[in-house]
Amino acid sequence: MFFTQTGRDERCQARSGRIETKKGVIETPIFMPVGTAGTVKALTPKQLGEAGAQVILANTYHLFLRPGTDVVRQFASLHGFMAWDKPILTDSGGFQIFSLRANAKVDEQGVRFKSHLDGSSFFLSPEAVVDIQNILDSDMQMVLDHFAPYPASRAQDEKAQGLTSQWAARAREQFLKTNRHNFQFAIIQGGLHVDLREKSLQELGAMDFDGYAIGGLSVGENQQEFMRILQPLAPCLPADKPRYLMGSGMPEDILLAVENGMDMFDCVLPSRNARNGTLFTSHGQVKIKNEKYKFSDQPLDDSCSCYTCRNFSRAYLRHLFMSREILASILNTIHNIHFYLDFMTKIRYAIQSHKFIEFKEDFLALYKGD
Amino acid sequence: MFFTQTGRDERCQARSGRIETKKGVIETPIFMPVGTAGTVKALTPKQLGEAGAQVILANTYHLFLRPGTDVVRQFASLHGFMAWDKPILTDSGGFQIFSLRANAKVDEQGVRFKSHLDGSSFFLSPEAVVDIQNILDSDMQMVLDHFAPYPASRAQDEKAQGLTSQWAARAREQFLKTNRHNFQFAIIQGGLHVDLREKSLQELGAMDFDGYAIGGLSVGENQQEFMRILQPLAPCLPADKPRYLMGSGMPEDILLAVENGMDMFDCVLPSRNARNGTLFTSHGQVKIKNEKYKFSDQPLDDSCSCYTCRNFSRAYLRHLFMSREILASILNTIHNIHFYLDFMTKIRYAIQSHKFIEFKEDFLALYKGD
Repeated sequence: MFFTQTGRDERCQARSGRIETKKGVIETPIFMPVGTAGTVKALTPKQLGEAGAQVILANTYHLFLRPGTDVVRQFASLHGFMAWDKPILTDSGGFQIFSLRANAKVDEQGVRFKSHLDGSSFFLSPEAVVDIQNILDSDMQMVLDHFAPYPASRAQDEKAQGLTSQWAARAREQFLKTNRHNFQFAIIQGGLHVDLREKSLQELGAMDFDGYAIGGLSVGENQQEFMRILQPLAPCLPADKPRYLMGSGMPEDILLAVENGMDMFDCVLPSRNARNGTLFTSHGQVKIKNEKYKFSDQPLDDSCSCYTCRNFSRAYLRHLFMSREILASILNTIHNIHFYLDFMTKIRYAIQSHKFIEFKEDFLALYKGD
Repeated sequence: MFFTQTGRDERCQARSGRIETKKGVIETPIFMPVGTAGTVKALTPKQLGEAGAQVILANTYHLFLRPGTDVVRQFASLHGFMAWDKPILTDSGGFQIFSLRANAKVDEQGVRFKSHLDGSSFFLSPEAVVDIQNILDSDMQMVLDHFAPYPASRAQDEKAQGLTSQWAARAREQFLKTNRHNFQFAIIQGGLHVDLREKSLQELGAMDFDGYAIGGLSVGENQQEFMRILQPLAPCLPADKPRYLMGSGMPEDILLAVENGMDMFDCVLPSRNARNGTLFTSHGQVKIKNEKYKFSDQPLDDSCSCYTCRNFSRAYLRHLFMSREILASILNTIHNIHFYLDFMTKIRYAIQSHKFIEFKEDFLALYKGD
């Protein structure tokens, strides 16, 4: 079985589970640190493992452009190339092609775009994206999807949803022909329209993917709009398959999504914020450059067991950040990634103890920030 | 005993030894990774320890300006502040004040300068530099010296040498009054004039410092000029004390200096070059961005046992460097620092086996580069 449910808090939709891949087991709900270009920025694979990462996310579009599939092919898999021996999920690049202003031109065949690196032109079809992900040998592969940047008209959202379904059918066919040891996820689109989301789920659900993702949320809408889509949609995703909410990463959003039955999350926030000196702690966000930490001999989070919190003070972290030292990015990223993974561990434990609601309330009561 | 000689290759001046400090023993000849601002750039203290570092160098001038001695004082020592529990040597800042174009004004009292960070004015006397290093609790402390940037007139070199001796006498007096558990080094100046160097050694030698350093070399002179000073001077430094050649760091220069009796070295080269993609290997320097490594599944150096060489290919290191990923700086620095420390271990072993000359020849025969 690819996915098995292992726990439930019956007072809501929250559930825990296991995903089994050839590279190992993933306990859900899970956060996947983002390693866009074949590296989670500022961490060695060893540090990533020590932080508790079970799976990382990489990006097909970025790796296709650089180093190129011909390079990764030499190493049999992305795992071999980047020396990461646990599971990898690869995003298709659909979101990146449209959000990096790559002058994308879309038709039924696929997407024509210019590289954000050097402007050279490329064409990717749904089938080609499967082929590239097969070369990367990613354990979980996202189909090429289409999405209309927020805010979009209903017509744009309708077109994107329709094309996403057409492409998904072709991607599924290509995957089933070429890959027998990995898993493929569809991406539900439809913008902020509940009926389009339902249509998308219905069409994609009929194609029997291994997992289902919600795309096109956390793209600028407010929390009310976010919940207006998530709350009815999430519990309707197939219960026997993993449910992945793409790109949503604030702890508060993860709690809401888990409560509504989602299992998998990714976001650049913990790593990007780390490099910008914003740190996640059990007491909320800390801006490490704040003058009040200049003399502080306290760890960032006294309830955290990461390498950073076990060894360094806020004053030292502030000094490194003010001095623009690379070690600031390293120690901050170690902490933020550890914080997120520890947060997910606590969520899983709470669900299995039938105490998710209490955990959520306790967490939010403490999580106030600077 | 602070310093004990443990070996000799009798065919030259090369010697091995032990330095004992309250923070641990250092085997010489030794290379000290540079941690100017309280961090060896891009490495955690843990990675530094794993690379084999026995001692690091920090800079009094930089730490005085940022985070400031009031901050470090809170942590009892620089060791406590930066979470490095092995010995630390601190440079005085003399070199930095003059080389960072800090608008330094020198008189007999000391040096008045503007911070390279924000332009604010400071005054440092030889005594104040001792006081700051006492707060840092550095195990080995360099006196405030004066040096005339290369190329200098004889008059400039003469003045700098004279002032260095005057300041050294005051620094020694201050140190002996205030510090009983650390050690202090004098810095021999005199530019490229053998007689000024002899005068400097004679004056400073009479002050009975714990160790002696040669300053003002590797500042732009060619190897012939470098050797014209080093060769007669090095063997005349007190034999019962550690001898430190400041700032010289090319492997070839270290071999020449060890051959002439020097024990301690520091240089930004291995860490700075790492960040610039120039890597030291047993076969010479490798420029990792070279197109020829695009598909290479070989490690950087197949005779190296560092984390980088055990886990990653040249192709992956090239990809990280081309993508300007922080992990490029991390993995490259791990390798370069490990390379230098391993190089010094081999030098010590060769000296103790009375085979330093053979080691030097074998090393240079292989060390050719791209």
